[in-house]
Amino acid sequence: MSRIARLGIVGGTHGNELTGAFLVEQLRKSPAEVTRAGLETVLELGNPKALELVRRYVDRDLNRSFKPRFLAEPSAEEYEQGRAAELANALRGDLDPASICLLDLHTTTAGMGPILVLAAENAFNLAMLAYVQARSDVKGYLWQEEGAAEQPGFLNSLSPNGAAIEVGPVPQGVLRADVLRWTRQTLMLCVDFVAAWNAGERFVGAPYVLHLHEAHVDFPRDDAGRPAAVVHPDLQDRDFEPLRPADPLFLSADGTTLPFEGEATRYPVFINEAAYYEKGIALTLTTRREGTVPA
Amino acid sequence: MSRIARLGIVGGTHGNELTGAFLVEQLRKSPAEVTRAGLETVLELGNPKALELVRRYVDRDLNRSFKPRFLAEPSAEEYEQGRAAELANALRGDLDPASICLLDLHTTTAGMGPILVLAAENAFNLAMLAYVQARSDVKGYLWQEEGAAEQPGFLNSLSPNGAAIEVGPVPQGVLRADVLRWTRQTLMLCVDFVAAWNAGERFVGAPYVLHLHEAHVDFPRDDAGRPAAVVHPDLQDRDFEPLRPADPLFLSADGTTLPFEGEATRYPVFINEAAYYEKGIALTLTTRREGTVPA
Repeated sequence: MSRIARLGIVGGTHGNELTGAFLVEQLRKSPAEVTRAGLETVLELGNPKALELVRRYVDRDLNRSFKPRFLAEPSAEEYEQGRAAELANALRGDLDPASICLLDLHTTTAGMGPILVLAAENAFNLAMLAYVQARSDVKGYLWQEEGAAEQPGFLNSLSPNGAAIEVGPVPQGVLRADVLRWTRQTLMLCVDFVAAWNAGERFVGAPYVLHLHEAHVDFPRDDAGRPAAVVHPDLQDRDFEPLRPADPLFLSADGTTLPFEGEATRYPVFINEAAYYEKGIALTLTTRREGTVPA
Repeated sequence: MSRIARLGIVGGTHGNELTGAFLVEQLRKSPAEVTRAGLETVLELGNPKALELVRRYVDRDLNRSFKPRFLAEPSAEEYEQGRAAELANALRGDLDPASICLLDLHTTTAGMGPILVLAAENAFNLAMLAYVQARSDVKGYLWQEEGAAEQPGFLNSLSPNGAAIEVGPVPQGVLRADVLRWTRQTLMLCVDFVAAWNAGERFVGAPYVLHLHEAHVDFPRDDAGRPAAVVHPDLQDRDFEPLRPADPLFLSADGTTLPFEGEATRYPVFINEAAYYEKGIALTLTTRREGTVPA
C-alpha cells in the first residue's frame, strides 16, 4: 500500500460531543503538533451548526450521511447532507481515497475508555491499531455490516484508512479533562504512526486485539416504545469485559433481572450510549480477536 | 406548621433527565408505594413534549418558568409557560401552598450522588433533610438568591415545602440503575417523612448538614464565548469536598492550571453540569452548615 498524502482530523461531527471540537480548535492554534514532513494535515469541525445548538445533529445524523447517493446529490432539505458533501470535498476532493487517512474524534457516554473504531480491515489500519496498542491501553473495534444493502454512511467511509477515535465515559455536552487527555494522546499516537508508515515501516507481525461487531441488543420496550428496563448494574461500565451466557443483562422496572440469552461469551461495547436509545441499541455484542499485522 | 394535605411528585421536568420520568411511570402502575393515609398524592410528568425530544426543554427551561407573572398570564409562544401554568393548577390549584409538599425529580451530570435541593429554609424542609440524612448519605443544598429582583421560577417555588431530588452522575438521555435506585430510595424516605410529619412528629433538635449557595463560577471563555479551559482533573467528581484557596480549579487549553482564587474554603457542587454551560456556570460554591432542626 502506498503512502499517505493527506491526514484529515475532524472534531465535532456530533454537535454534543465537545471534546473533539475543543481539540480541533486547540490544534488550529498549534498545527505543528499534527504536522509531519510530506503530509498535508486538514483540520475540520464536522457539524458547526449542531455544535452551536449542542445537539447531536440538526436534521439527520451527520455520521450516517456520507452515503454515495447523498454526496452525489445532497438534498437541501437536510443540513447534514450538504455538510457531508462539503466535508467530502475538503477531506477527499480529487485525491485517491487510498492516499488519505481520516481520524474522526468522537465521545461516548459508555465507559469504554479510548478506542479506535477502524474504518475497514486492512494492513494500514491493523498496523495503526498494533502501533497504538503497543504504546497505550487503547482498544479496537471493527463495525461490520449485517447484511445491509447500503453502508451506514460514516465519515470514515470516505477513505479505507483511518478510524474514529471514540472515548468515554463523558456525558453529552460536557468536557472532561481525562477524556480530553485520552483523546489527544490517542490522536498523537495515530499521527506518529502515519509518519512511521510514510517512512516505510509496516509493522508486519505486530500483535493487536480487535473486537469484531456481531449484533446490537435493544432494550426491552413498553407499548409506547420507551425502555421498560435499564442496563443491569452488574453490566453497566463493563464494556469489553466478558459477558457469559445467563449473566445479568437488564433490570426491569419491577426489579426482575433479565439474563443474557446468548450461547457463548461475548464482549459488549457501547453499553448504555445515550445517542443509541433512538437507534434501538442498548449495547453491542462483539467477539474478540487476537491477531498480528499482515503483510 | 400544619399538616401536608397533598404530595406532588414530578419527574421529567427536564426532558433529557430520564430517571424521574421512568420512576413516575413506574409509580403510576403501583401508586400504593407513595400513598399514605390522609395524604393525596399527585404524580406528574413535567415536560412530556421535551421528553419526546429527549431535550432539556422545547422553548424555555420549564424549571425557570414558575414565575408568578408567567403563571398569571402564560405566553402561548413558549410551550413551557403554558405547561408551567397547567402544572401549577394540577399540583397547587386552590390549596394553601403551605399544605403542599412537592418533590421534583432531577438528575445531574455532576458526581454529587443523591441530594435534596430544599425549596426554602423552614422547619418542615430542615426536618425532612435531617430525617433523610439520619437514614442515608443524601446531601443537602439550599439555593439562595443573589440580589435578583425576581425568583428564578423553580417548580419548587409553588410551595415552601419540598425539594428537588437531584441525583448524579448520569449523562443526559441515559438511564442508570444506580441513579434510579438512589432516586427511588431518597423519594421513599421523603414520603415516609411526610407521613411522620402528618402523624405529628417534628424532629426538633435532630442534626442536619446543609450546603448554602454562595456563588456560581463560570468557565474562562474565549472571544466566541466557548469554554477556554476545562474543570481541573483534581476537582472533577469532587462535589461537596473542600476546595481550598489556591487549589486547582481549571486546566486551560494550553495546559496551564488555574487555581481557586477564593480566600476561604468552599464546597463546590454541580461541578461540570452539562445543562449549565449555557447558563455560564462551571460549578457552584457553597458553605457548609451543621445545624439542628428548629421548633
